[in-house]
Amino acid sequence: MKPVRLALLGCGTVGAEVVRLLHEQADDLTARIGAPIEIAGIAVRRLARDRGDLPVDPALFTTDALGLVKRDDVDVVVEVVGGIEPARTWLVEALRAGKSVVTANKALLAEDGGTLHDAATEGGSDLYYEAAVAGAIPLLRPLRESLHGDKITRVTGIVNGTTNYILSSMDSSGASFTEALEEATALGYAEADPTADVDGFDAAAKAAILASLAFHSRVGAADVHREGITEVSAADVASAKAMGCTIKLLCIASRVSGPSGDSVSVRVHPAMIPRTHPLASVGDAFNAVFVEAEAAGQLMFYGRGAGGAPTASAVLGDIVAVGRNRLAGVRSASESAYADLPVRPMGEVVTRYHISLDVADRAGVLAAVAGVFAKHDVSIATVRQSGRGDDAILVIVTHGAPDAALAATVRELQALDIVRSIASVLRVEGATT
Amino acid sequence: MKPVRLALLGCGTVGAEVVRLLHEQADDLTARIGAPIEIAGIAVRRLARDRGDLPVDPALFTTDALGLVKRDDVDVVVEVVGGIEPARTWLVEALRAGKSVVTANKALLAEDGGTLHDAATEGGSDLYYEAAVAGAIPLLRPLRESLHGDKITRVTGIVNGTTNYILSSMDSSGASFTEALEEATALGYAEADPTADVDGFDAAAKAAILASLAFHSRVGAADVHREGITEVSAADVASAKAMGCTIKLLCIASRVSGPSGDSVSVRVHPAMIPRTHPLASVGDAFNAVFVEAEAAGQLMFYGRGAGGAPTASAVLGDIVAVGRNRLAGVRSASESAYADLPVRPMGEVVTRYHISLDVADRAGVLAAVAGVFAKHDVSIATVRQSGRGDDAILVIVTHGAPDAALAATVRELQALDIVRSIASVLRVEGATT
Repeated sequence: MKPVRLALLGCGTVGAEVVRLLHEQADDLTARIGAPIEIAGIAVRRLARDRGDLPVDPALFTTDALGLVKRDDVDVVVEVVGGIEPARTWLVEALRAGKSVVTANKALLAEDGGTLHDAATEGGSDLYYEAAVAGAIPLLRPLRESLHGDKITRVTGIVNGTTNYILSSMDSSGASFTEALEEATALGYAEADPTADVDGFDAAAKAAILASLAFHSRVGAADVHREGITEVSAADVASAKAMGCTIKLLCIASRVSGPSGDSVSVRVHPAMIPRTHPLASVGDAFNAVFVEAEAAGQLMFYGRGAGGAPTASAVLGDIVAVGRNRLAGVRSASESAYADLPVRPMGEVVTRYHISLDVADRAGVLAAVAGVFAKHDVSIATVRQSGRGDDAILVIVTHGAPDAALAATVRELQALDIVRSIASVLRVEGATT
Repeated sequence: MKPVRLALLGCGTVGAEVVRLLHEQADDLTARIGAPIEIAGIAVRRLARDRGDLPVDPALFTTDALGLVKRDDVDVVVEVVGGIEPARTWLVEALRAGKSVVTANKALLAEDGGTLHDAATEGGSDLYYEAAVAGAIPLLRPLRESLHGDKITRVTGIVNGTTNYILSSMDSSGASFTEALEEATALGYAEADPTADVDGFDAAAKAAILASLAFHSRVGAADVHREGITEVSAADVASAKAMGCTIKLLCIASRVSGPSGDSVSVRVHPAMIPRTHPLASVGDAFNAVFVEAEAAGQLMFYGRGAGGAPTASAVLGDIVAVGRNRLAGVRSASESAYADLPVRPMGEVVTRYHISLDVADRAGVLAAVAGVFAKHDVSIATVRQSGRGDDAILVIVTHGAPDAALAATVRELQALDIVRSIASVLRVEGATT
């Protein structure tokens, strides 16, 4: 039986786990593919690094990734390095040469997935990337294949474990963002430089990939409206609790019908969701993605979004798939971007706001505040007033309105004399009223 | 573009919805497959039946299903009739002739899936059945494909909407089984003859299919230990509540390692699960399947398990997949049953019991009861005694023990003089202690 020869690019946490699983489950993988998998080489930055007792011939390590990718005896290239370059150069080279590619590189796919897909088409190659979004959760294949007879209307996900850990911890302990981030760093849930996570870049890359698959269109990271969680305060969390809600960093991709045809809106921002929503109980560093489709209704996928073993599980699944395809002499369904839907600017997207205002306690305050909302054509769903005198707080939840109108309303409220400060502004999602 | 020609067998709730979606989403489906889908014929039992305003040429209806399947201009056969015969004859005929088959027929797959898979191998045909388990939830494809690089250790599912509706209603209202069944029937959640649902036959068929896929082995309905929910009493539900649990009809397929190699255990029975378990909050007629794999960890899939549109969504997804395969001239991965694991008898499966005993209130009762457990080598985890005199109740939760030993313990307790009656016996799943 001719083996499937695999080049592994990167041997960090995920790469080492892939090597370990390839070794441990060799017999099962051989049976499932129909041929054994053989590692042709492993490209790393530093040969000298201690890799523990990895079950692999040390002679397989090389620092020449491009040379490894170009070798004639390589069938499948597995990339777990991350970042745009040099990963893009390696993968484009592999795909154009007809090699199958399995990658976990969400940043590259979101930044320039089109280049990879074009190279795959050119080379007649397989491009698989289940590990790029929500780690071990089988999500991309269901979106790409199981639901392709249906019309997906909305995808709402918790796709970043670090921020979910931080927000869950703020929710349960009342801690501030800074305290919760420190705890997450100490426990290894946040990296030394947490920017990619807490500013929403990681979630935005995943949102772009999900939107592309769900709506059969090319959506890139630049198309995603992105807000991180650094501004979420303990007061926001308390406000949410008082409303029977919790705060989550959501990625939301939705299909919007309009008079001039359909478009998609893709955004990442913290939002209040009711505690009864299935996503509300997704705690710790878990991920979950809620999918709504016309015929299927509501679906949810839940599991571990990161970590060596869960990510490696997704990579291995893809390796088996491309290995089988090679043996059968076929390639899988290529990119489906036929719909080519335009992206709707955030300002036009209909959202709902929760606004909590610290106001002067005197007659006419509510009338003045309500007047600002009316001026921007924003309809108020509920108003709650609490406290008297110096502690008077107005909590307002709006009906759906264009995001730009809501933002303009908040700006104008801020300028009102009777508004001392705006204690909290948060979007509200998943509510029924 | 040469169309993909489809024979539809059955035009009830699901079939009519398939016809409707094929019509409504024709453009999208054509783009996704690469060719249009054309209905070659629809086999029904009675031509005269009123089918509302189904968007299809009435001349396509026929009562000759086998004749339709045999026609040369049919590429894909979609079966939504159900039952063993004549569906088996039709599908074997189609598969042997190289036609692609999409079916929602769980009973046939569980009863005699091997015959269908063998016919598919013989004809080099595709056999897809996503709709057979958990309706719209993309579950079989993830098990078959996404997780095939991992080792699945356990699948725990709520896969029958009718029984979940009944148990959820008993849990929230305290109603008896009979009352809850009546309500479910009135609301259309239960059929006039609810046997297949409440006795667990439907869940057992799905359990067999899930076990086959998860463990790469042929598991049939006869291999599944099956207990329904007709014996679940309001007192059981109250007992569960007192323990912080709820009762669900679970299908459980697990891989068991033993000295003589691995085996699988497959069972369907009501069980108490802690309210904190992700499956506990799956209410109404929803389905959810919890999957545990070595590398991926815990995953959960949630959605609508039945109904015309959700089931049709799964059927359409499969139609797109087989349509694409036909155009590419390939067939998908065939059955994977290489592991061929034996099925472990229920008596040997390790489970935990919750037993609630109505006992005489006199000295030595606990010692006598504990002696029975010790005799059968069953270790007690917790004992709670409540009430005095005529109302004395002993509630015992065991550690894990072979099911046969637990059953023998219960039989012997029943025969004890000091035990007035056994108020409730339920298995406990998903607990940590």
